[in-house]
Amino acid sequence: MTPASDDGPVDPRSALAGLWAPVLTPFRDDLSVDFERFGGFCRELLDEGCHGLALLGTTSETPSLTIDERRRLLEAALAAGVPASRITCGTGACALPDAVELTRHAMQCGCLATMLLPPFYFKGIGDEGCFRSIAEVIERTGDDRLRVVLYNIPALSGVTFTPTVVQRLISAFGSIIAGIKDSSGDPMSTLRFTKAFKKLAILAGTEGYLCAALRAGASGCVTATANVRARAIRALLDDWQGAGARERQAEVTEYRASLEREVDIIVAMKRLLAERTGHAAWALVRPPLIG
Amino acid sequence: MTPASDDGPVDPRSALAGLWAPVLTPFRDDLSVDFERFGGFCRELLDEGCHGLALLGTTSETPSLTIDERRRLLEAALAAGVPASRITCGTGACALPDAVELTRHAMQCGCLATMLLPPFYFKGIGDEGCFRSIAEVIERTGDDRLRVVLYNIPALSGVTFTPTVVQRLISAFGSIIAGIKDSSGDPMSTLRFTKAFKKLAILAGTEGYLCAALRAGASGCVTATANVRARAIRALLDDWQGAGARERQAEVTEYRASLEREVDIIVAMKRLLAERTGHAAWALVRPPLIG
Repeated sequence: MTPASDDGPVDPRSALAGLWAPVLTPFRDDLSVDFERFGGFCRELLDEGCHGLALLGTTSETPSLTIDERRRLLEAALAAGVPASRITCGTGACALPDAVELTRHAMQCGCLATMLLPPFYFKGIGDEGCFRSIAEVIERTGDDRLRVVLYNIPALSGVTFTPTVVQRLISAFGSIIAGIKDSSGDPMSTLRFTKAFKKLAILAGTEGYLCAALRAGASGCVTATANVRARAIRALLDDWQGAGARERQAEVTEYRASLEREVDIIVAMKRLLAERTGHAAWALVRPPLIG
Repeated sequence: MTPASDDGPVDPRSALAGLWAPVLTPFRDDLSVDFERFGGFCRELLDEGCHGLALLGTTSETPSLTIDERRRLLEAALAAGVPASRITCGTGACALPDAVELTRHAMQCGCLATMLLPPFYFKGIGDEGCFRSIAEVIERTGDDRLRVVLYNIPALSGVTFTPTVVQRLISAFGSIIAGIKDSSGDPMSTLRFTKAFKKLAILAGTEGYLCAALRAGASGCVTATANVRARAIRALLDDWQGAGARERQAEVTEYRASLEREVDIIVAMKRLLAERTGHAAWALVRPPLIG
């Protein structure tokens, strides 16, 4: 699975198993990116029990970052000592050349996989538009060692990876299609993916129905909340079939709901980190989010 | 109104009056941008009767272009001999630093005005998120000569410029707020803007209700269809109070509807240009659009 490896195919379900943190992006007072703090925070999240980091998805406020900032954030994580084998990096972009450039960069950095969000401005693009968007990036990246996690987040992207699109991508690109990060928020959607694509790593985009997803065959979760309480989610993941799992699941679900109750979850978590660390700038977000 | 002018304030309603073409972006077979063809096409559209060019909005497939491609397209129009005083240039972007860079670039090029689309990934950003997104770009651009046309296209951006937001922007930035391009598709929305903001240039995003908009005090329209039949729309605009206006309005409205009937209007117009010019590559679009 690791691009540089010659050890033959690795099952994406095991390579991508576990708890993945979509890391928050710290800004300075002038809203420039605090790369050094980001690198340090990435390390902390691994120390807190995350199996890996899902860099540069929604939680990182990625659409609010320039292409250069995105490249440099990945490099900052690596410079801080995060192994590339524990990184899956968001490389989707509205502009095809940007997505190709970022995907190549992530591969050059040795990332385990890339997460591809389709373009999100034009609406009603349908299965064909979704398929072509991903297919063009893969074709132009032009490297069989590429591993792609499809990033399904219809509420923000306006695009749904339907089973038809996923199957077409698998038929066209085989083992390059490694998994699906399902941030639909809908447990039934995640369960449908696990049922339909047994060879892919299915990652729930929330811990809110983690036990149900694991029971159905999901590989784990990529959840924003890992930024502020990785240990509790990891504990649930490690013992999801144990006696206390039901109670633990209820507790992590309720905690997440409490974060989402008043403001955007990104804003809520950044405020929490500002309080915890005493570093006030942690609370900063870029517009259109409001801190 | 022209940034470089010292002749005192110019009424944005007259400076932005008329028919504005949001220019289609021609690609080569490999989907790279055909800058030279773009420049020539810009000139043709002025020759066809457009008062000015509204570069790099939705019709230009702008979200599918890189920041560098956007800068170079504006430069290609200027190199082809389009006067900067007849250009209003789209400079909005999801990432604040990109929007600031593009806005400064458009000003350096001497453009009459810039069109600002707010960030379009995060949803439910509300009036505060919309206001802060635009305010930050204006503040960071830091030049009182800036003139901004607010780009209201909620169906694609997911963000609506409410009267409250527009009024707050006017209160904060005065004559920097020059107009509103209303691509809501809703005549009532355009009429509300003309009624509420009598000092702004209100531009309908379609010719489909041009006479009604002009009657209510709108300054003109920015319409995709200008790419393929500017003369007919210009004729309506020049004689909108004349005896044949009602019939002309019905005819241009029906023509536009016929373009939109089967496929995306961008795709439909590009196919038409490919046929007309015999240059097959005109039909190409970048994903997520499908040609």
